Amino acid sequence: MDYLYSKYLEQATEALGSLPGIGKRTALRLALHLLDRDLIEVERLANAIVLLKQHVCYCTSCNNISDKETCAICENPLRDHSTICLVENIRDVIAIENTHVYRGVYHVLGGVISPIDGVGPNDLSIELLLQRLQKQQINELIFALPATVEGDTTGFYIFRQIEPFNVKVSILARGIAVGDNLEYTDEISLSRSIQQRLPYSGSAV
Amino acid sequence: MDYLYSKYLEQATEALGSLPGIGKRTALRLALHLLDRDLIEVERLANAIVLLKQHVCYCTSCNNISDKETCAICENPLRDHSTICLVENIRDVIAIENTHVYRGVYHVLGGVISPIDGVGPNDLSIELLLQRLQKQQINELIFALPATVEGDTTGFYIFRQIEPFNVKVSILARGIAVGDNLEYTDEISLSRSIQQRLPYSGSAV
Repeated sequence: MDYLYSKYLEQATEALGSLPGIGKRTALRLALHLLDRDLIEVERLANAIVLLKQHVCYCTSCNNISDKETCAICENPLRDHSTICLVENIRDVIAIENTHVYRGVYHVLGGVISPIDGVGPNDLSIELLLQRLQKQQINELIFALPATVEGDTTGFYIFRQIEPFNVKVSILARGIAVGDNLEYTDEISLSRSIQQRLPYSGSAV
Repeated sequence: MDYLYSKYLEQATEALGSLPGIGKRTALRLALHLLDRDLIEVERLANAIVLLKQHVCYCTSCNNISDKETCAICENPLRDHSTICLVENIRDVIAIENTHVYRGVYHVLGGVISPIDGVGPNDLSIELLLQRLQKQQINELIFALPATVEGDTTGFYIFRQIEPFNVKVSILARGIAVGDNLEYTDEISLSRSIQQRLPYSGSAV
């Protein structure tokens, strides 16, 4: 695969192969697929990714991805603006929105503290969160960060930073997932779900 | 995932999701990754795929992908132009080239006969192959088509078409692959490798 018989094919394969999770072989397959498509479709894809990069901005309130200065969620008067759900990125916003049970607003950190990946607190939108807590009347901040060491570290760091604001802080429940068999559940999740057991209310929670 | 909070993100995700093997979630991940990249890198990717579609053509001799009228292999005087290896697509050319044992030229069919996918003989470069056999002095045609029903059908169809040219036709050996354990080899491959057993020459072939 050193020489692909076409400079253009080689360049397109290289560019596609720079995307995450796309190796050399997949990149070649994608490039050959694009060759079979109409020019207009290929141009549509090319334009879409350039427009994305040129026009998408971040909500000045919650740091979520948006086409305008304020995102659709922060603009929505029907949402509870006194409850903020703290998430790592927009994929988590989408995941929570898909549950249809949360009516508050979000704050998108843009990552979690991870020294290995060179991500420190200053790379995240923590300052923006503190400003928000200062300016607005916030009743509750929900930590919906990943259940990993990095997520826990980030949560703890922010918890220390927001102590002066005296805001109620909660965290997503951890325990066995719906559909899980106990025998396959990891020990930590299982032990947490025992320690934090809930009063039985006649049906599964 | 119905509404991605940004028209541009939605369009880019949709365009990326139209690529083969890339679902909605992966497309969103790729789009968000592109957002994190520099504009110049995103533009380089966009340009690469448009240039690919605009400039790549097919070799007028062997139907391989090329930047010029004749591909690098057909132009190479050191290759044996009297031996043609018949393959399905350019990926197979690359696979065979990587073995470094073949010094002849190729003929790229552009697919195999597959009624289910709506691919008939007229969609392949069979006419071009017949012209080649008519014009040039070809000693041997090697069938290197996929070892599938479609590959075998295509091979048989072409074999019938080229009968008048009286050219020697061979086919890639089929049998157990290097590194295979006999117990895991499928019955057809194993039975072929028994029927077509070779004289032992002191080392594995």
